[in-house]
Formats: sequence, C-alpha cells, structure tokens
Amino acid sequence: MAIKNAFYAQSGGVTAVINASAAGVLETARAHPDKIGKVFAGRNGIIGALTEDLIDTSAESAEAIRALRHTPSGAFGSCRYKLKSLEQNRREYERLIEVFKAHDIGYFFYHGGGDSADTCLKVSQLSGTLGYPLQAIHVPKTVDNDLPITDCCPGFGSVAKYIAVSTREASFDVASMSKTSTKVFVLEVMGRHAGWIAAAGGLASSPDCEIPIVILFPEIAFDKAKFLAKVDSCVKQYGYCSVVVSEGVKGEDGKFLSDQGLRDAFGHAQLGGVAPVVANIIKDGLGLKYHWGVADYLQRAARHVASKSDVEQAYAMGKAAVEYAIAGHNSVMPTIERLSDKPYNWKVGMAELSKVANVEKMMPADFITDDGFGITEKCRTYLSPLIEGEDYPPYKNGLPNYVRLENKAVDKKLEEFKL
Amino acid sequence: MAIKNAFYAQSGGVTAVINASAAGVLETARAHPDKIGKVFAGRNGIIGALTEDLIDTSAESAEAIRALRHTPSGAFGSCRYKLKSLEQNRREYERLIEVFKAHDIGYFFYHGGGDSADTCLKVSQLSGTLGYPLQAIHVPKTVDNDLPITDCCPGFGSVAKYIAVSTREASFDVASMSKTSTKVFVLEVMGRHAGWIAAAGGLASSPDCEIPIVILFPEIAFDKAKFLAKVDSCVKQYGYCSVVVSEGVKGEDGKFLSDQGLRDAFGHAQLGGVAPVVANIIKDGLGLKYHWGVADYLQRAARHVASKSDVEQAYAMGKAAVEYAIAGHNSVMPTIERLSDKPYNWKVGMAELSKVANVEKMMPADFITDDGFGITEKCRTYLSPLIEGEDYPPYKNGLPNYVRLENKAVDKKLEEFKL
Repeated sequence: MAIKNAFYAQSGGVTAVINASAAGVLETARAHPDKIGKVFAGRNGIIGALTEDLIDTSAESAEAIRALRHTPSGAFGSCRYKLKSLEQNRREYERLIEVFKAHDIGYFFYHGGGDSADTCLKVSQLSGTLGYPLQAIHVPKTVDNDLPITDCCPGFGSVAKYIAVSTREASFDVASMSKTSTKVFVLEVMGRHAGWIAAAGGLASSPDCEIPIVILFPEIAFDKAKFLAKVDSCVKQYGYCSVVVSEGVKGEDGKFLSDQGLRDAFGHAQLGGVAPVVANIIKDGLGLKYHWGVADYLQRAARHVASKSDVEQAYAMGKAAVEYAIAGHNSVMPTIERLSDKPYNWKVGMAELSKVANVEKMMPADFITDDGFGITEKCRTYLSPLIEGEDYPPYKNGLPNYVRLENKAVDKKLEEFKL
Repeated sequence: MAIKNAFYAQSGGVTAVINASAAGVLETARAHPDKIGKVFAGRNGIIGALTEDLIDTSAESAEAIRALRHTPSGAFGSCRYKLKSLEQNRREYERLIEVFKAHDIGYFFYHGGGDSADTCLKVSQLSGTLGYPLQAIHVPKTVDNDLPITDCCPGFGSVAKYIAVSTREASFDVASMSKTSTKVFVLEVMGRHAGWIAAAGGLASSPDCEIPIVILFPEIAFDKAKFLAKVDSCVKQYGYCSVVVSEGVKGEDGKFLSDQGLRDAFGHAQLGGVAPVVANIIKDGLGLKYHWGVADYLQRAARHVASKSDVEQAYAMGKAAVEYAIAGHNSVMPTIERLSDKPYNWKVGMAELSKVANVEKMMPADFITDDGFGITEKCRTYLSPLIEGEDYPPYKNGLPNYVRLENKAVDKKLEEFKL
C-alpha cells in the first residue's frame, strides 16, 4: 500500500472535546508514517477543502498536538456549510476530489454530526463513481447526542456534566436565598430538537443530594397551568426550585416559546431567549422572585469541567478513525458501544455510514417522567456514566492553558474556486 | 474570661466561598473551647436571630464542617433583610440583644458586605448603650468587591476566575465558528454599581493568548456609535470578538440599558437582561451573527472553578474573626493586605468597622483604558493574583460532593417576635 496523505476537517458547532478527537487522529496518523504521509486540515472545515485552504499539521510540535486534548473549540476552525445533494451541486463534490488528487490525499476524515456524516458518505460514493480511490471515515461529534448506532456522541458528556454541575451549584445558591429573596432559578440550555441536554439538568439532583428540578423538554408541549402548578408545589415543599428549560421548548401551538413577539419601545422585534419568557410566566402566575441564566456557548466550551469519560471517548474516536482507515475500511464511523452501566464499561465499535446519515436519534419516551417534568431512572442510568470523572486542563496564571496552533498554510496547486 | 457562646450569620447574596469563611469561624471556635462555648448560626441570616431560630453547629461533625470549605452558597441560609437605623427600629436591635442574652452569646460574627458591616457596627454600639457585653466582628464577603480598606473581598476572586475562564472558552468557540457563522459572543455578568466583575472578563486575554474583548462597564455611559465602531474594528481585525457586559450598564440618559421597555404581544412589560439588548444592537448596527449568554447565579455559585487564593482568603477571614474576638477586639473586620503582586503575597489585617460601614469602594478610573472598553495594565496587575490557583471540590458520581448540614434547631427560650 502506497503512502497517502490524509485530510481532516471539523464541521458544525464545536465542543469542549472536538480537539481531543483531533489529537487522536493526528497522533495516530503520526504513529503510522508507513501508511499515512501528512495530515492536511481544512481551514474552517470543508470550506478549506473547497478553496484549497489546507493547513499542514506536520508543522505542529508533538506537544502542541498533545495539548489539543485539553483545548476546547475547533483548532482549525469549523464552519456551518452543508454541501447540497449530488444532483444539486455535483461541482462541489468534484472539486473536493480534485483537491484531494492534487495533494495526494487518500484518506478523508470528516468530523461532525448528522449532516457531515451524510456529506462524508456522498464524498465516498463519488470517489467510487469518479474512480479516485479515497477512504472516507466519519468522526462522530455533537453536543446534541443525536447520532444513531453509537451509544452516545463525544461532546455531549461534557455539556451534560457542565449543566448538571451548574444546576446543582445554582440550586444551592437559590436555596440559600429563598427565605426572603429568590425562590426560582431558571437555566436555559441548548437542544433545539431533543431534550438530551435538558435531561442532564436532572442529574443535579441525586438520592444523596435531593434538589427540586423542573425540566422543560422540547419533546413535551408547554402547558402553562401544569407548569405553574408544578413550580408552586416544589416551592411549597422545598422553599425553592430550579427550572432547566431547553431552548427548543414549544407551546401547544407548535411555536417556540422563546418566540414571543417581543417589541421594543419603537416597535422593533426583539430576539430573546426562552429563560426570560419562562421567568416572566412564573412572576405573573405565582408572584415569585426569580433569577435566570442562559448558558449558551459557555456550556459547550467548558473544557475546564469536561467529563473524563467524554474526553477519553473523543480521543478514542479519532484514534479508531485512523486505525479503521489503515485497516482498509471506507464509509464507516467509529462508535461507542456500552458494555455495562455500573461500573461503566465501553468499547469502540463501527457503523456503516449509510446507516448513520440522515437518521436522528431522539430521546426515548420512557426517559421522561409521566408528568413530563423530570427524568426517569432509566434515563439516569443512561446519563450518569457519561459525566463520570474529571479531566482538568493545565492552568497558567489562573487560566486554562489552551493551545493555539500555528496553522501553517499548504501551498496551493489549483485554480481558485468560487463558493 | 468566662466561656461565652457565639452567634454567626450569613447575609446578602451568597458566594462560592462564603462557606469557606464559615468553616474558618467554626473550626477556629472549636479549637478554643476554653473561650468559646457553642456557635449558634442564624437560620436564614439575621432573621434567625430576630426570630430566635438558631442552629446548633456543635451538632455537626468535624467532617461536615471541613466540607463547608468546598461547598458554595450559604449553608445556614442567608437573607436580604436590612435592619433600619437605630432611630427607626430600635426594637429589632434590642431584640437581637435579648436573644443573645437568652443564649449566653458574647460574640457576634456577622458575615456580609457593606450593609451588614453597618448592622454589625450598630449592634456593637447598642450593646454598649444597653450595658450587655458583646464583641461584634464583621466577616467580609461580597462578589461586588466594594468593601473599603481590604485589598479585595472574599467571593470576588472566584467570580472573577469564572468570568475570565468562561470568556476565554466562549471566545475560543466563537473564533472557531466565525468564518461562516457567529462572529460576536456577548456575555452578561453581575455588578450593578461597579465594573469589577466585568473587568475580570478582560483577563481572558493575555499576552500569550490574545483575544479581542470589548467590555461594557457600568462606570462608562453607553455610546452606541463608539461601541459599534469598536466591535466592527475587532471583527475586521480578528474575525470575531467577545463582549463582556455588566448588568449595570447605563445609557447616556442614565437609565439601565437592560430597561428597554420591552412589551410582549399583549403589551405586558417584559424584564430582560442586558445581553440580548446589546446583541440586538450589534445585529441591527453591523448585521453580524451573534450568540449571547447570561451567567447570573452560575458565576457566583461556581465552586467547581473557584480561585485558590479566594478560598484561602475566605477561610483566613473566618479564622481571623474568631482570633480577633478571642484577643478581645470589638467592632472590627479582618482584611486582606496585599504585600506584593508577583509573587502574590498577602497577610491578614484589621479594620475598624466605623471606617468600613457605608463606604463603597469603586473601581479606580485608571483601571479602565482610555477608550472605555478595556482594562489597563494596572487593573490586570491588581486582578491577576486574585484568580490564581485552583481548589477543586471532591467529586462523587461525576458531580461535586457538596455538603448539606443537619442544621439542628436550638430550643427557643423567648416569646415569639413578629418581623
């Protein structure tokens, strides 16, 4: 087998551990110089491939690559750029193949969620059609935890840990203040389509540390009267409560609760989050003092409180992707297979991309309690191992010492390509 | 000297390290059984004293008291309850003395910010007037960092670290996404009167990790055109930027920027944060894609990423308060005296309460850059040591193992008192 170069790109929303997978890819590729030449990374994801804006990762020190393991976000830049179908934009797929040819690239590692799995599959199919040999391997990543086949998705465990830890901490705070001041804390979390991240808020309460937590899932239509009754009952029983609300919660009319048609003094539409909307409902309905927070990027960038399970799995996915490529696989994605819940054991598996692309894993109905506001024991059993363990980054002067790569450009060989 | 009991209460907004001071008070009192009998804590702060709702801390194990050091929030409950002036409500002050007498309390440890320092001073003065011997010691605590004399306030360093770490992490995230998606991240932080916490956002950028950060301080009237020009220039130079905005930012009309007179579809007033307002200004003015977050309670409850300096100082303040009491002091507050910036050295000092009460320490004008959007080197030199070091709590099943005390009530001896 001739030595071929590899291409690696990060796609979509970044996570606290996407670079840990990148470290897995790069370190494993470097360990096989007899199989893989250089690894070129796409600057800002797939756009870097289309525009032939490649980064020569061989210029980075072993130390810098190692430091990716503890650095959040996408070290080479990511992008939100979905390639259209082959029929609609064959030109882009052909350009990818052209760039890969020009740089002697025989391995395509595409790192992202559902959309990028689909792109990865299409690139693989086209390479066959065009007779250019290419092994396309998808590296799983998404805080949304919605990829099929794999037990969980790297990136999700760390968000889950952040939300569970933050909800516990804020709940301790509001409990302290509840006698004369704030009685309800509302935290808005990510998850537009599925309630995986909101569910993680439920982990803040455990048998040895009970906390009244009301979760608003995107799977359950918001019922104002029922919600207010639930909050009221928690506050009466415990003196306080915490509400974890998914950004994707919808009313019974099917519209996002966050889309309240707010207008400023001049009548301009205002875009708000759902947390202040829920807080206002509590104020108007129950007259309780509240505080609200919106975690937004903080939750998916919080490498400082990453889950050790998640970091290890992210690294393992990158490593396995390269090993699968070397073993001759094509159109596959490494997966996480759960072997046992407690103690938590898992191993690396493999899925056909044709079974991954365009399939969204939703949260099972039996993960949500009958009243629609909590997580079941089954959900807890699933989630708990994913937040296990701490994996702290090194600190310098009180701040995490995250790495920034050189990101040296590879000389271009082709004509310019208009996106 | 006869053995006397002590009273301890937490006041106002809680912090990540207020319980570390409590551990300092309780462990030090326990080490001096020849001077101090039992320590009674006020359930929900000073209200617990007024209503004779006392907690017997001697019922707690040494292990539980030790665990307070790593547990955020107020373990005995806090309250927002400001005693009026002696002239307006002498009855409440006299009730305090009555409760202290009934429980043989000779030491009054009051733990809070500026308002509680004032209360502590008044209680001390009244005990003299009424001829009841009482040593009143104030334990400093406030995330607002606005107490005078002391170099910094326990609680602030950990919020500062949280904001600096979170701003760095979110900035790495937005940098990754900026090519095709989000270009500006806006983070709202606490600090209604002074920009100490917002200033900490500036620490996210350091010489070895430069990040374009635009800070909106409550000290500087918001100038929309200047702000938009600054953001625009950052985005043009770096491709992205982060905005750290204090909740207390006001427009040139002196009104809070967050108070935008928002109305929902039914014309009801909506209370929002300032982050979405600033984000909208960026969208309307520059057309840039943004994300925004509101840290709210997460910032002051984040014991998981507490500053080691802060935890040590908080503990030292509690310890010194008891030592000062034993040494016979009255109407004083332990302080932190900075000896050197780098390496950071400090020692415990002492301030007269008469010089602390009703004095608010504002941020020096020369801590803010001339353009009004950044921190100066002088500010950095002041802030940096306060976020130094990590002091992680123990974890269990992936979550911080925070303690909850028994909080056993002391038998009441007096008639009921109506607040």
